[in-house]
Amino acid sequence: MNTAATRRETDSMGAIEVPAGRYWGAQTQRSIEHFPIGVARFRWQRPMIRALGVLKRAAAEANAELGELPADIAALVVRAADEVIAGQLDEHFPLVVFQTGSGTQSNMNANEVIANRAIELAGGVLGSKAPVHPNDHVNRGQSSNDTFPTAMHIAVVEQLHARLFPAVAVLRNTLAERAARFAGVVKTGRTHLQDATPVTLGQEIGAWVSQLDFGLAAVHATLPGLHELAIGGTAVGTGLNAHPRFGDMAAARIAALTGQPFVSAPDKFFALAAHDALVQASAALRTLAGGLMKMANDVRWLASGPRCGIGELAIPENEPGSSIMPGKVNPTQCEALTMVCVQVFGNDAAVAFAGTQGNFQLNVYKPVMAHNVLESIELLADACAAFEHHCARGIEPVRAKIETNLAANLMLVTALNRHIGYDAAAAIAKHAHKEGLTLREAALASGKVSAEDYERWVVPVEMTRTSGA
Amino acid sequence: MNTAATRRETDSMGAIEVPAGRYWGAQTQRSIEHFPIGVARFRWQRPMIRALGVLKRAAAEANAELGELPADIAALVVRAADEVIAGQLDEHFPLVVFQTGSGTQSNMNANEVIANRAIELAGGVLGSKAPVHPNDHVNRGQSSNDTFPTAMHIAVVEQLHARLFPAVAVLRNTLAERAARFAGVVKTGRTHLQDATPVTLGQEIGAWVSQLDFGLAAVHATLPGLHELAIGGTAVGTGLNAHPRFGDMAAARIAALTGQPFVSAPDKFFALAAHDALVQASAALRTLAGGLMKMANDVRWLASGPRCGIGELAIPENEPGSSIMPGKVNPTQCEALTMVCVQVFGNDAAVAFAGTQGNFQLNVYKPVMAHNVLESIELLADACAAFEHHCARGIEPVRAKIETNLAANLMLVTALNRHIGYDAAAAIAKHAHKEGLTLREAALASGKVSAEDYERWVVPVEMTRTSGA
Amino acid sequence: MNTAATRRETDSMGAIEVPAGRYWGAQTQRSIEHFPIGVARFRWQRPMIRALGVLKRAAAEANAELGELPADIAALVVRAADEVIAGQLDEHFPLVVFQTGSGTQSNMNANEVIANRAIELAGGVLGSKAPVHPNDHVNRGQSSNDTFPTAMHIAVVEQLHARLFPAVAVLRNTLAERAARFAGVVKTGRTHLQDATPVTLGQEIGAWVSQLDFGLAAVHATLPGLHELAIGGTAVGTGLNAHPRFGDMAAARIAALTGQPFVSAPDKFFALAAHDALVQASAALRTLAGGLMKMANDVRWLASGPRCGIGELAIPENEPGSSIMPGKVNPTQCEALTMVCVQVFGNDAAVAFAGTQGNFQLNVYKPVMAHNVLESIELLADACAAFEHHCARGIEPVRAKIETNLAANLMLVTALNRHIGYDAAAAIAKHAHKEGLTLREAALASGKVSAEDYERWVVPVEMTRTSGA
Amino acid sequence: MNTAATRRETDSMGAIEVPAGRYWGAQTQRSIEHFPIGVARFRWQRPMIRALGVLKRAAAEANAELGELPADIAALVVRAADEVIAGQLDEHFPLVVFQTGSGTQSNMNANEVIANRAIELAGGVLGSKAPVHPNDHVNRGQSSNDTFPTAMHIAVVEQLHARLFPAVAVLRNTLAERAARFAGVVKTGRTHLQDATPVTLGQEIGAWVSQLDFGLAAVHATLPGLHELAIGGTAVGTGLNAHPRFGDMAAARIAALTGQPFVSAPDKFFALAAHDALVQASAALRTLAGGLMKMANDVRWLASGPRCGIGELAIPENEPGSSIMPGKVNPTQCEALTMVCVQVFGNDAAVAFAGTQGNFQLNVYKPVMAHNVLESIELLADACAAFEHHCARGIEPVRAKIETNLAANLMLVTALNRHIGYDAAAAIAKHAHKEGLTLREAALASGKVSAEDYERWVVPVEMTRTSGA
Repeated sequence: MNTAATRRETDSMGAIEVPAGRYWGAQTQRSIEHFPIGVARFRWQRPMIRALGVLKRAAAEANAELGELPADIAALVVRAADEVIAGQLDEHFPLVVFQTGSGTQSNMNANEVIANRAIELAGGVLGSKAPVHPNDHVNRGQSSNDTFPTAMHIAVVEQLHARLFPAVAVLRNTLAERAARFAGVVKTGRTHLQDATPVTLGQEIGAWVSQLDFGLAAVHATLPGLHELAIGGTAVGTGLNAHPRFGDMAAARIAALTGQPFVSAPDKFFALAAHDALVQASAALRTLAGGLMKMANDVRWLASGPRCGIGELAIPENEPGSSIMPGKVNPTQCEALTMVCVQVFGNDAAVAFAGTQGNFQLNVYKPVMAHNVLESIELLADACAAFEHHCARGIEPVRAKIETNLAANLMLVTALNRHIGYDAAAAIAKHAHKEGLTLREAALASGKVSAEDYERWVVPVEMTRTSGA
Repeated sequence: MNTAATRRETDSMGAIEVPAGRYWGAQTQRSIEHFPIGVARFRWQRPMIRALGVLKRAAAEANAELGELPADIAALVVRAADEVIAGQLDEHFPLVVFQTGSGTQSNMNANEVIANRAIELAGGVLGSKAPVHPNDHVNRGQSSNDTFPTAMHIAVVEQLHARLFPAVAVLRNTLAERAARFAGVVKTGRTHLQDATPVTLGQEIGAWVSQLDFGLAAVHATLPGLHELAIGGTAVGTGLNAHPRFGDMAAARIAALTGQPFVSAPDKFFALAAHDALVQASAALRTLAGGLMKMANDVRWLASGPRCGIGELAIPENEPGSSIMPGKVNPTQCEALTMVCVQVFGNDAAVAFAGTQGNFQLNVYKPVMAHNVLESIELLADACAAFEHHCARGIEPVRAKIETNLAANLMLVTALNRHIGYDAAAAIAKHAHKEGLTLREAALASGKVSAEDYERWVVPVEMTRTSGA
Repeated sequence: MNTAATRRETDSMGAIEVPAGRYWGAQTQRSIEHFPIGVARFRWQRPMIRALGVLKRAAAEANAELGELPADIAALVVRAADEVIAGQLDEHFPLVVFQTGSGTQSNMNANEVIANRAIELAGGVLGSKAPVHPNDHVNRGQSSNDTFPTAMHIAVVEQLHARLFPAVAVLRNTLAERAARFAGVVKTGRTHLQDATPVTLGQEIGAWVSQLDFGLAAVHATLPGLHELAIGGTAVGTGLNAHPRFGDMAAARIAALTGQPFVSAPDKFFALAAHDALVQASAALRTLAGGLMKMANDVRWLASGPRCGIGELAIPENEPGSSIMPGKVNPTQCEALTMVCVQVFGNDAAVAFAGTQGNFQLNVYKPVMAHNVLESIELLADACAAFEHHCARGIEPVRAKIETNLAANLMLVTALNRHIGYDAAAAIAKHAHKEGLTLREAALASGKVSAEDYERWVVPVEMTRTSGA
Repeated sequence: MNTAATRRETDSMGAIEVPAGRYWGAQTQRSIEHFPIGVARFRWQRPMIRALGVLKRAAAEANAELGELPADIAALVVRAADEVIAGQLDEHFPLVVFQTGSGTQSNMNANEVIANRAIELAGGVLGSKAPVHPNDHVNRGQSSNDTFPTAMHIAVVEQLHARLFPAVAVLRNTLAERAARFAGVVKTGRTHLQDATPVTLGQEIGAWVSQLDFGLAAVHATLPGLHELAIGGTAVGTGLNAHPRFGDMAAARIAALTGQPFVSAPDKFFALAAHDALVQASAALRTLAGGLMKMANDVRWLASGPRCGIGELAIPENEPGSSIMPGKVNPTQCEALTMVCVQVFGNDAAVAFAGTQGNFQLNVYKPVMAHNVLESIELLADACAAFEHHCARGIEPVRAKIETNLAANLMLVTALNRHIGYDAAAAIAKHAHKEGLTLREAALASGKVSAEDYERWVVPVEMTRTSGA
């Protein structure tokens, strides 16, 4: 399309030239001109555009059914909205995150694009607002104040299901497979970074699985809040200018279109003035990121070396590790993942801060909240997928090193507590450490443990049995 | 008690002098000497001391039942632990938050105090470790690595129930009462800080109630994770040296002692290596704080003035507001509360950061995590109680100001959208604003609205009816 | 270019197909395949690509002068690097932030692109590594561990000068002009959101100027740390494989190429293992953001209304404010700016967290740190420019409202303190407030102030004179 | 003193009973009753009480010299203020952080205590406000809005000098001594946690010293901002009711009393409305904490083991490490220090958040900002002192482990780059790794390096020479 030519569009501020080849109207154009902020990186992406399309289609259908919109107008809106949903009109959504804090301009962007595309479908003149008006028809019974947060929830829920849950689940399952596979590998446990009593590699990896499960469950637990939609509240929560059944009906349509159990929020005033469901979702993503960070750190420390570190795990060698040290291989997937985790922490700080700053009937940090939650979802999903594929599935024990370490581990002494008491056991361990003896040597030297006792009492694999003594 | 005199206590590092009048032993004394960090403000308080007492009693009972501890020894431990639970021995818990990251020294503090007090009850010699040994008896089947996180969960759950939930509930109920009382007060809504369509004061306050309910529910939703106890995992999660049924049995005793549904954590490795349940609890407290901050800000802005601000609410005048401006009254309860909210945000940042830093089988930021969560609970509870008592219950509408504002509000024009369309309505509002007219004057001047239409269409109270058009 | 066709490139891991039309080599290609994380938004942008070009040119020149690189090879590298600097090869830099934490892959991307482009300039075969080798020539005397942090500092310093400082300065100057223009407008001061003694609008706006100056100075103060470059440290800080004078000489070349006083860092070990200069820069950007947030909030509150708020300032009306409320105009520039401020807070949280996570000789969160600092710079610059252009320069007092408010302000009573004492003055103010009197009426009614005294003592403009009584 | 008996005190709200044995008056008493928030832990401590005393004495002296206060009244105020400064009246300062956000109640607490103590010294009746009035005399020419932030700056500057700088300097010097002592210990460097080219232990520790120096310098750089005092601004910045020379003169007196170069802030409006100097100080403390965290982490990882970790450093064994694992010794000082660092991050988050929330002429988060900065200073000072004394000074290399690791380190191969090229060197290292050979064996087997070359080229100590090849 030729974007150099322009046509005239109007809004309540007057007329303005817009690119001829674009469906957007006057308000979108004003936003482009007034908010050239982070343009290269902060344009709304697919999830929000799609969500706006879903919302506008649902609204048109609800209004039609309620007699608020003529059937033919509604049908035109639905056709145009379907193109938005399908991604065919993404280039007509040029706006960025940093605009008005209610997302009004993106709501109007959707209204204008859908109206003009509908007009085009009807054979009308772009910008004429006839037969389809962006406000009176596409935005019928709506306000940015309820549509934008509705789209936020739709986008976040859809992205959680489409991206986050599957990616984390695959990683979790791969780790669970590794845990099962290495359930018999007995190794040194470590607390305070110091040698401790034995665990199995299966137990060690299993703890990562439990932590990911916890994080995933935490994110899942935020879904009910996210399923509640502001739609129907219009400008301030009262639903002024919307049919009294519009909110419920639009939410039901959105649920049908997305396959997710969206409902109309019980308190629309709260739904406009605060976005605590997003804050909670962000916090849960942070918890998940914290778990991923712990896991990735464990992996790289256990794989540290190859010769001067712990060296108990081998991970896939994917790239040359150094531009100067030949042959070096680094835990790069761990690094990318932990950087993502740190970013998620930063994103969450922004979301939580923004969440506190509402006033009266509106929180005007909506776009920045939606953006950061969506970005965290995307980054976690991408990084989990990469980590799973290029690292987790290739984790292997370095059995020789594991065995050497275990044999040297003085904390096997703990098995003696029950037999000779803590104080006597401590003396044996300290003696071995000081003199460079093996634990067995020191135990026998103490005179409190016979060779037979030692063999019977100090059995690493038995020390890993969670089913007891 | 004379604390100048000392007696000799020993541990595996050797002997050390401790105050004669204190029950603690060598390890507590070493911690006092090695960690003089924030002593004036960071000593453990009642909740953690009580929780350690509960834990030690439960452990002794479980061990006795399992035959791991002689009945007479267990009985002595229970008696001493009961004194810890009751707060009679608080002065024997001198340690601070910033110690070893597993809380080992506080666990040993409990072991030592209970052992020595039990010895005393049995007529023995303090420091003799007979007949009750701090490790072999009081700590039987336990490690700091499972006891301290168990105590953390006990303390947090108890404080949530004892302090946070009731205090927030009282505030929430007071606000709900205000909302009901002022359900008929129609007033200007505000979005973007700008005049918007009307709401009732009941709706406005009701949104605060909904937000507090959301925050409370978010905190409640973290309870299941907090009910899972690490006890039974001992040093690394395997439960080495504990009877296989010890974890379940001790958790059951703890549940009985506290009246809370505590259970043994299904994956002890996870329960030692990460504290995501605390991270989630902290995040939920942050969400609650965010809601309180929004509410408190609304209150003070609505009460701003008295003559040059919004001035629609009157709040109790509790103190002289200024040391220089006579007669000034400030929204001090709002200020104290929002400062608490900011503190809770800071505390949460510390908790979440700490939560990421576990390695292998242990997270060694346990004390700082517990401390910050407990502090957030205490501060929120205290501040909500003060706010409720000295501010919320006295909130009153300033009806004259509310009516003046509403009458002047141009956004009543929104009611005309449905009748004359958005563009024509916008022109009326802009004309009124520019010329300083009332909305009615401008509407009639437009020629699109008759006086009768205006009276019928622009009825503020009807614009607040959420049940519809 | 046809990107479907491929050619074979090799590195120490073996061979791999890369797009025929791209200059990058095997390591870049591996990174593309292994790190598909946030690809749509996290590709490195101009500042980092340019910085890598500057660095590589400077290194080649330094090596040539030191006899470490043949003159003809160096000349080829310089020619290719100049194209990188100029932005001609941006499409050959496909990598994202979330890669290896040392930025090795982006360093190798630069090495590979420059080598292949240099080979092409020399008439050689792409991928042949002859006559120019990416490691042995382009990366001569370097390691990712010193080049990437060097490029980070170059990019940040250049962006501060090119984007941040000018944009904030223009805003600051516009506000200073407004302050001077409105130095004579006496108005109600506000503390605790409550009416307080008078200030001039010039004083009020002047405080914003002072705060921006403070923030700018804080950012400026981080420049000396940013001027110190890691170059010369190579892999671990020892400078192994670099000529002993290489670091100093390369830094001098970088200084010459950029016009900024870059020097070689005095402790290369610190320069690789930590990036505290970036942490400090991020913190200063956060302080600046805090100041902008306070200013933007003041603007929107002072402009709140138009009829039911404070309404003392008028700001430009740029867009229709509401999709449902006709004629509404919102403080959208304030909203975009404060959302940017919140984002900067989030970015800073990520940077500071990442800054703590170095181990031994390297911090492997380099890319995420650089990314967030650069993003904060860009967003603040963009938002300040937009705010200045579309809001600040159009700020005007609403004199009628200012005068009405000032006349009603009871805190003019403070002027009586010096004459009748605080307690008597307080009684007058309280009486006026309770009875709805003017301050003058209440003062006279008190019997402690004559009409003449009142006129002489209570003169608002004199109460604003910072030069005293 | 008997605190059960009461006397009647009055303020502009009326009369109230206060404990007979306390000097505080009505406003302090109201604050006690209205703000029972975090009472056990959030009472103001010595630094703020002392700072208020310094301020009140300086103000009295300045007012006396300016003829604003009779000499005898001033002398009484000075005597009472001196007792506050000396700490003799700390029990008369019962208020907590979470009060009014301007600190008005703590300012009044100082005014009331000094007035009543002065009255007592003059033989008057407590509560009579004669001959010394808390507002008209002690608070003469002042407002909480300028006194409290003045006291904040005084307290922070004094604590930085008294606590933080010396404690960090001692640690830094101890580490520098260790670095010098171990300058000759050549060991494995580590990047990405992987074996890298050699460094000396001196270089490794030296990087910690550089980082602490950077952090200390960052804190020092915030002093000029902290030296600027709000005093003289009174209620809103205009200095109303203060003598025009009062601010300068009071600041000079404060400088004299403290020995620090305090001055009157050039823009009082900014000094009341924002506390960016505190925000910057907090950020610098965070940077310092980040450096300490990296150092402490390095220490504990290098000391990890004793047998299954890196084990290259030995640190003092201060306490038994485990309640269940006998003989275990943990890096407890590292743990306490890193927990403090995490707390400082949380405190800083609170400070920075609070710093954004000013409105118009006042930021009402003053107390929470002061509290967190002071706490961070105290904790960092305490933790550094403990770490220095109980850990840093006892750091020793474990030479046998260091030598074993170094001998096994394949990254010595990097020394071959200059002689045989990166690719050939990489092949050697990979071959050695795959086959379990020593580097020397693999190098010779490659046919590209003779035994003589190897001995000449691969000399670890030479690889650590920062002065070059």
